[in-house]
Amino acid sequence: MDLADPLVYTSPDPVMADGAAYVDGAFCPIAEAKISVLDYGVTRSDCTYDVVGVWQGRFFRLDKHLDRFYASCARLRLTPPLEREALAVVLHELVARTGLSDAYVSMTCTRGRPNPAARRDPRASTNTLYAYAIPYVWLADADKRAAGLAMAIARNTERISRRALDQRAKNYHWLDLDMALMEALDGGADTVVLKDPEGNIAEGPGFNVFAYRDGVWSTPADNVLEGITRGTVIDLCAELNVAVAAGAMSEDDLLGAEEVMITSTAGGIIPVVSIDGRPVGDGRPGPHTARLAALYWDKHGDPAWSEPVRGLAAR
Amino acid sequence: MDLADPLVYTSPDPVMADGAAYVDGAFCPIAEAKISVLDYGVTRSDCTYDVVGVWQGRFFRLDKHLDRFYASCARLRLTPPLEREALAVVLHELVARTGLSDAYVSMTCTRGRPNPAARRDPRASTNTLYAYAIPYVWLADADKRAAGLAMAIARNTERISRRALDQRAKNYHWLDLDMALMEALDGGADTVVLKDPEGNIAEGPGFNVFAYRDGVWSTPADNVLEGITRGTVIDLCAELNVAVAAGAMSEDDLLGAEEVMITSTAGGIIPVVSIDGRPVGDGRPGPHTARLAALYWDKHGDPAWSEPVRGLAAR
Ligand SMILES: Cc1ncc(COP(=O)(O)O)c(C=O)c1O
Ligand SMILES: Cc1ncc(COP(=O)(O)O)c(C=O)c1O
Repeated sequence: MDLADPLVYTSPDPVMADGAAYVDGAFCPIAEAKISVLDYGVTRSDCTYDVVGVWQGRFFRLDKHLDRFYASCARLRLTPPLEREALAVVLHELVARTGLSDAYVSMTCTRGRPNPAARRDPRASTNTLYAYAIPYVWLADADKRAAGLAMAIARNTERISRRALDQRAKNYHWLDLDMALMEALDGGADTVVLKDPEGNIAEGPGFNVFAYRDGVWSTPADNVLEGITRGTVIDLCAELNVAVAAGAMSEDDLLGAEEVMITSTAGGIIPVVSIDGRPVGDGRPGPHTARLAALYWDKHGDPAWSEPVRGLAAR
Repeated sequence: MDLADPLVYTSPDPVMADGAAYVDGAFCPIAEAKISVLDYGVTRSDCTYDVVGVWQGRFFRLDKHLDRFYASCARLRLTPPLEREALAVVLHELVARTGLSDAYVSMTCTRGRPNPAARRDPRASTNTLYAYAIPYVWLADADKRAAGLAMAIARNTERISRRALDQRAKNYHWLDLDMALMEALDGGADTVVLKDPEGNIAEGPGFNVFAYRDGVWSTPADNVLEGITRGTVIDLCAELNVAVAAGAMSEDDLLGAEEVMITSTAGGIIPVVSIDGRPVGDGRPGPHTARLAALYWDKHGDPAWSEPVRGLAAR
C-alpha cells in the first residue's frame, strides 16, 4: 500500500473476514497479529490505544478518536511512527480489507522493545504502532441492551488514581476494572462501576456513566477517561436543549437518579435499570436514555458526524 | 519435550543463544515469542508474571519465585495451564536450550483471549502461559552499580494504590513507574522511588528499597511487591544477626538514612548514594550494603539457596 495515496484501497480479502491487522508496517489476518513478549507495551503495559467504531460502512467521529489518540500519546511521551493522515489511511484500509460494514477499529502505540544500549531507559526505545479492525464489539448482548443492565458498585476495588496514572490517556491498566467486574458478575450483576480515591463514582470496564435527575444529565468529570461517546452525549444534549453537567458524582447521586446509562464506543448508550439490586426509577429503561440512544445511532449516518470507509462504500 | 520426564533436556541450540521462549506449548527463539494483540494480557494487562535469576548455571531460589507466581495467579483468579512441576521443567529446559549460564527467566500467565460465547466475561477465558530465558538483565550498568545510584523521589506520580490493585500480585501495570522514571532521568537521576497514597515511600521501577540507620535496616511493608530479593535480604540479616524491620518509611526516614540500597532480581543489591541530589551518608556506597551484597552473591552457589540448571550443569 502506498500511504502517500489515500485513494488506493484493496478490495475485501476473504482471509481477513474475521479481522485485519497492521503490525510492523504490514497487513495480516487478525489471527497473525502478535507483538513481542519483550515489548514494553507488554512488560510494562507502557502504551496507549484508541478504538473507533464503524457502523453501516461509516466511521463515527474518526477525527475525535484520532485527536484523543495523539493527545494520549503526547501525555505518555509516546511518538507513533505514523502521522495522523497516514494512520487514518491505514484504518480505512483495514476495514476495507475485512469487508465488514460494522467494525471495531483499534490502534495502539507502544513504547517498543528495550534499547540494548540503554536497557532501562524507556526514552531510548523506538515506539511502535499496530492497529486492527474486527467485527463490532458490544459491551452487552442485545437482550441485555434492551432490558437494561444490573450494575454493582465496586466495594473492594478502587479505580486507579489520577495521581498514579492520568486516566485521560486511554490505557490498558485494567486489572482494577477486571477484578471488580469478576466480583460483580459473581454476585449476579451484569456490570460494575468503580469509585475514585475520594469515594466519588468514576467509571466502569470500558464505559462512562451518566445519571439523570430533575431534568439534568450528570457525569463524573475527574479520574475518568474522557470518552468520545460521553462527549457525544454532551453534544447531543446541547442539540436537544437538555441540561448536562460534568462534575463530582456521589454514590447517593447515582442511587437517587431517575435514569442511569453507560456510554462506550463498544455499544453506544446502554440503560442501567438497577444498582446493587435496587431499581433505578421504575426499574425499566427510561425515555430520556432512549431519546439519546436513538439520536446517537441516527448520527452514524450523518456526514457531519461520520464518514464512509474508503474502498468499502464504493462497492 | 515430554513434561512427564524431567530428566530429558535438549542441549543448547545456537538459534536460541539470544534467548529461548515457550509459547502456546512449544519452544521457539526469543525473536519469535509473541502474543496475540487480542489477549486480555495485552488489552487489559490482565496477567501476572515472575522473574527468577540464573547465575553461573544455577537457579537462585526458584522455589520462592514459583511460590510467588502461583500466589499471584491465585490473587488475580488466574489458573496457569501448567502445574508447578511442569513449569519448573519448562524453565530448566529454556535455560538449557539457550546455553546461558547467567540468565533472566520470566514466566507470565495471562487471562487469555476473549471467549466469543461470553465476550465481556473475563472468567470465561482460557488462561495462557508463556515463559522465556534471556541473558541476565541488570537494573544498572556495572559502573553505576559500583559507584552507587543517584535516586529521585517522584513528586508528580504516586505508586498505584493497593486499593486499586494488590501490588503483592506481581503485575505489568507500570505506567506510573515508567512516567516517574522518565522524569527522574530527565532531571539527571539514575532511578526513582515512588510514594504510596499516604505519602510513605513505596518502591521503584523493578525494585524494593532499604534504608539503614542506627544498626537497623528498614523497608516499606505496604503497597509494594514483596520482592524475593527483599525477602532474601531479610533472611541474610537474620543470618548476620543484623536487625531488620518492615514498616512504614517516611521521606524523612529515607533522607536521614546512613545507607540506602535497592533490591531486585535484576541485579541483586545496589547501593544508592544520593537522593534528590543530597548525599546519603558520606555519598559513597556503605559497608553494610557491601556486606549484604557479598553474602547475596555467595548464596548463589550454595545448594541450600540454589539449584543447578538441569541439562546445563551436566555439560
Ligand atoms: C476506562 C474507560 N472509560 C470509558 C470508556 C468509554 O470511552 P469511549 O466512549 O471513547 O469509547 C472506555 C472505552 O474503552 C474505557 O476504557
Ligand atoms: C514493582 C517491583 N517491586 C519490586 C521488585 C523486586 O522484586 P524481586 O526482588 O522479586 O525481583 C520488582 C521486580 O521486578 C518489581 O517489579
